[in-house]
Amino acid sequence: MNTSEFRRRGKEMVDYVANYMEGIEGRQVYPDVEPGYLRPLIPAAAPEEPDTFEDIINDVEKIIMPGAASPACTELETVMMDWLGKMLELPKSFLAEKAGEGGGVIQGSASEATLVALLAARTKVIHRLQAASPELTQAAIMEKLVAYSSDQAHSSVERAGLIGGVKLKAIPSDGNFAMRASALQEALERDKAAGLIPFFVVATLGTTTCCSFDNLLEVGPICNKEDMWLHVDAAYAGSAFICPEFRHLLNGVEFADSFNFNPHKWLLVNFDCSAMWVKKRTDLTGAFRLDPTYLKHSHQDSGLITDYRHWQIPLGRRFRSLKMWFVFRMYGVKGLQAYIRKHVQLSHEFESLVRQDPRFEICVEVTLGLVCFRLKGSNKVNEALLQRINSAKKIHLVPCHLRDKFVLRFAICSRTVESAHVQRAWEHIKELAADVLRAERE
Amino acid sequence: MNTSEFRRRGKEMVDYVANYMEGIEGRQVYPDVEPGYLRPLIPAAAPEEPDTFEDIINDVEKIIMPGAASPACTELETVMMDWLGKMLELPKSFLAEKAGEGGGVIQGSASEATLVALLAARTKVIHRLQAASPELTQAAIMEKLVAYSSDQAHSSVERAGLIGGVKLKAIPSDGNFAMRASALQEALERDKAAGLIPFFVVATLGTTTCCSFDNLLEVGPICNKEDMWLHVDAAYAGSAFICPEFRHLLNGVEFADSFNFNPHKWLLVNFDCSAMWVKKRTDLTGAFRLDPTYLKHSHQDSGLITDYRHWQIPLGRRFRSLKMWFVFRMYGVKGLQAYIRKHVQLSHEFESLVRQDPRFEICVEVTLGLVCFRLKGSNKVNEALLQRINSAKKIHLVPCHLRDKFVLRFAICSRTVESAHVQRAWEHIKELAADVLRAERE
Repeated sequence: MNTSEFRRRGKEMVDYVANYMEGIEGRQVYPDVEPGYLRPLIPAAAPEEPDTFEDIINDVEKIIMPGAASPACTELETVMMDWLGKMLELPKSFLAEKAGEGGGVIQGSASEATLVALLAARTKVIHRLQAASPELTQAAIMEKLVAYSSDQAHSSVERAGLIGGVKLKAIPSDGNFAMRASALQEALERDKAAGLIPFFVVATLGTTTCCSFDNLLEVGPICNKEDMWLHVDAAYAGSAFICPEFRHLLNGVEFADSFNFNPHKWLLVNFDCSAMWVKKRTDLTGAFRLDPTYLKHSHQDSGLITDYRHWQIPLGRRFRSLKMWFVFRMYGVKGLQAYIRKHVQLSHEFESLVRQDPRFEICVEVTLGLVCFRLKGSNKVNEALLQRINSAKKIHLVPCHLRDKFVLRFAICSRTVESAHVQRAWEHIKELAADVLRAERE
Repeated sequence: MNTSEFRRRGKEMVDYVANYMEGIEGRQVYPDVEPGYLRPLIPAAAPEEPDTFEDIINDVEKIIMPGAASPACTELETVMMDWLGKMLELPKSFLAEKAGEGGGVIQGSASEATLVALLAARTKVIHRLQAASPELTQAAIMEKLVAYSSDQAHSSVERAGLIGGVKLKAIPSDGNFAMRASALQEALERDKAAGLIPFFVVATLGTTTCCSFDNLLEVGPICNKEDMWLHVDAAYAGSAFICPEFRHLLNGVEFADSFNFNPHKWLLVNFDCSAMWVKKRTDLTGAFRLDPTYLKHSHQDSGLITDYRHWQIPLGRRFRSLKMWFVFRMYGVKGLQAYIRKHVQLSHEFESLVRQDPRFEICVEVTLGLVCFRLKGSNKVNEALLQRINSAKKIHLVPCHLRDKFVLRFAICSRTVESAHVQRAWEHIKELAADVLRAERE
């Protein structure tokens, strides 16, 4: 949507809200619809081609408004998570559909998704061990629980361990910054021999530092065999999996118990919208379920409805699935794929500019929209370059450490980025690099 | 703001956003301001009288836009939480101001605030005990930790205990559904004698079920004496404390370590906006702090800035303090007080209608906007009445259980509610009650 259409549609939406407020006394306080009303009114998958804005607004009036906040808010979320799951070709076991055991939920952030998965895994293993040995206390079990992630995993994984009160161990990644079977297996054997209880693994697809990919096809079977919960965190990279040519990066997700990525990062949905799926929804609700009278409702035990409050840390919820519905329909799957492809193409364009300059090196294989690069030479000279780049305030780069190397990260992430921006950024970086190298020689 | 002004202002805002998008390439990617730039540009307290919309928008352009998302988002939040704290006359130790040790943060929900407080308390007690006895493991301590709340506390407190992996015990409330010193003290003595470690108490001001108030002036000193973290949850009632005539309900908050209420519930700020204050910000950051390279920044250790990511479960954040800024300025403190007073007055109006009808009884003293009432008689007849009311869909009531009684809850909570609505609702309830009583006799 360009800005002139945004002006027109935005003003129509202001009027829509104002009209709603003016007519609110004529509305019922509670909807007439029955649980499950929404799914049959909506296609089973996202459209390939864009829908018109009029079509979407007409559907809001026809489909959402009669279902009010509840159950429309919940039911649209379940269906949108199915749409998105199908775009990614997630295994069917992760979908809710009409009678699935799995399904999706919108969390606020990948940190929350990781924490929720860890808590569900913790509850599950405690129940399993107590069923076998009823004399075991929760604390006695928790003392021995160990979770694992790669040494490249996001700090939020360590934080989930802190909050959940369990040990988290970092598995040394390989030369491509990926977690592999051998290193994981080694840690498991050592910990089991020491009497610990491995119960949870976070595999990352597209690490924050350098967009590396843990080897799911190796790690997944180990988790299944050892009865450990496997959570796959693809916060950034997940959006790319809607393109068939990147889908192979998700291979192995069939071994996972939960999967998460952030459409708010790279799929044009505004912050916050973190998409999380589980294979067994009862694993989540088992960890959180409490039912006081003021939260009871007549459909509680019918199995017809999804109580998302049992799927997350907070109790209240916003109607975030509306954002997904609008975006998926306004772009269509093809439009979203084109958006991802353009970003990946631009990052390769930047990569080839870097490779043509012998003063620079590419530090990690470029897979998606992130290019990790640096001046050949000391960390000090790269720190000086970063400092000049960020002080000039024309572009902004966030660095990382890869092993002992200080590395610059060029991330393609703006909705309106074009080749000309990439070219201009590179010219700018080259100029500042020349200044830095000159200053170093002097 | 009435709907005709909303139409005008809403459309101006759409243009504001569109203009921003059109001019975005002319902007710097990083602001020129220094940390701490914002506070001197903004008054130290909310205005008593409303500001004009023009004034607010001009300030957005002048004060927020030069500070971009960061640091403006963080700094406005800190200042708005100080404004709100001052409205409530919170003790100064809860404010950040220029050099305070406390301060406020916006959480998504009261559930998250309770959990964050519990986790901070857990870390603090573990550190304290390990400092005294380094041989103690975290698990050995956690096994003995006990948290307490009244049996009337919200289910999210029990949930925080589940997530935090600690015991939570319900203290029997008194005849007014309040937690009192004697019952708490009794539980403490029993648990300490059994070798447990009491560490955390949640006191509720304005319970969900019946808007009862735990006795802070009794409970607070016990918590301080026993070195237990006291968290005060006033999710609903907190908004009323901006009125001097209700402020006494908050007396005793000076004993608390953390305090929370939801401006999104009753202070005209849209969902979500849950306001939480702590006396020692280092207690929170101690529980969550992790600093990977990609989240480091040059002001990290200057003490000048607040890293809210260490104050909460998620990592990312929205710019929610803007909502507070707009609401506080558009209403002024007097406008907000008038809003609260009108709701309380309308609930007393409903109360007096109920009291005039000998078939009904009021179940709990009416303090704020909630009236707990029922037909004198069986639970069955009240359940039947509720069922008729909610089936008619003209008003909607959520019930509760108080001890063994099934109770109806009439909540004044709409922004546009008037006396006429209350009168009409009561006529409607009376008619349906007559039907129910007739059906019962037949």
